Amino acid sequence: MKLFDYWRSSAAYRMRIVLNLKGIEYEHVSVNLAKGEQRGAEHLARNPLGLVPALELDNGTLLTQSMAICEYLEDVHPNPALLPADPVARAQVRAFCFDISGEMHPLYNLRVRNYLSDELGHSGEVVDKWYAHWTTWGLSALEETAQQLPKRGDFLFGDAPGLAEAFLAPQYYNANRFNIPLGDFPRLNAAFDAVKDLPAFKAAEPENQPDAE
Amino acid sequence: MKLFDYWRSSAAYRMRIVLNLKGIEYEHVSVNLAKGEQRGAEHLARNPLGLVPALELDNGTLLTQSMAICEYLEDVHPNPALLPADPVARAQVRAFCFDISGEMHPLYNLRVRNYLSDELGHSGEVVDKWYAHWTTWGLSALEETAQQLPKRGDFLFGDAPGLAEAFLAPQYYNANRFNIPLGDFPRLNAAFDAVKDLPAFKAAEPENQPDAE
Repeated sequence: MKLFDYWRSSAAYRMRIVLNLKGIEYEHVSVNLAKGEQRGAEHLARNPLGLVPALELDNGTLLTQSMAICEYLEDVHPNPALLPADPVARAQVRAFCFDISGEMHPLYNLRVRNYLSDELGHSGEVVDKWYAHWTTWGLSALEETAQQLPKRGDFLFGDAPGLAEAFLAPQYYNANRFNIPLGDFPRLNAAFDAVKDLPAFKAAEPENQPDAE
Repeated sequence: MKLFDYWRSSAAYRMRIVLNLKGIEYEHVSVNLAKGEQRGAEHLARNPLGLVPALELDNGTLLTQSMAICEYLEDVHPNPALLPADPVARAQVRAFCFDISGEMHPLYNLRVRNYLSDELGHSGEVVDKWYAHWTTWGLSALEETAQQLPKRGDFLFGDAPGLAEAFLAPQYYNANRFNIPLGDFPRLNAAFDAVKDLPAFKAAEPENQPDAE
């Protein structure tokens, strides 16, 4: 398999964690978002939205959208399972993941920050405030959600790290990168602390990617 | 089941289509987004992000995030199936749905439009342009994606409407509401035309909801 990847993309980062947790070997192909390669014809042919990650299967089939790829991997490489077996618990983990990938992350994606600065003329300070606003909004709600779960251990939904932790860890990386304070989220902080040094998470860190600058 | 719903929410609209396609009866409970009820304590207890839809199961369990609820319904009410059986095809439908629910829709959610106008001081015209920009960006890419699929009929991924059409139809409703031209999307237009008058889609239309104003 080939992962079309970029070291600093948090959607690609969560995908790397998931591939590592499942023990799936993949070839890394860098799409340099800082240089705009995601908007080049070559990458648009892979994903018309111009986003990473995309996963090319060994037969050449291309899959896009990190969560769709995670579900595909659950379907075809079910062990270790990264979603619980119970339908309600599965829905809760998926909702947690979508709160991150479909509510928080799209608001501070590069294309959106570029629109705010280039089209709307906002300063870096305003764009950073936008970023911090949606991060804090999202993590506060996720902390609430996590507090409502039956506490079972450090992991959010079970006895081992799963999709929830794979989606959460890159948000922590981003928050640290943009100096957004993370003091008020005890349950999320505990979950992050429980996974951050695991090999699957460590190997997926942006700084440990071949295209890191 | 109780659906926490709002007539004009496109995430709730897609949920209504899915419940109708599956023939699941539900009780409608309105959360008036225009009046800010989604930010009231009662709704925040259901969903800390303050979003609709939320689905309350008969035992009181609350589920959030439209796609997580769709997956739950696929798990427990598998007929009619709204996802294909093949893992690659499933991934493609899911990616199509996430392109809508996780890339386009969050950018023009009410909370984001409010931030643009209230926090950043933009005029209605600038907010409408933002809305049109991300709609056209998303639908152009989805048209590309749809063009790449093997053409099998009017529906996007099979012989019957599924999650892809349920997620697409509300985008068309929104585009019409905001006068965004839809001429350049022949494949998507054909899919929309094939479903728009089906009872499951018609009954889910915003104007046909009890809280429509």
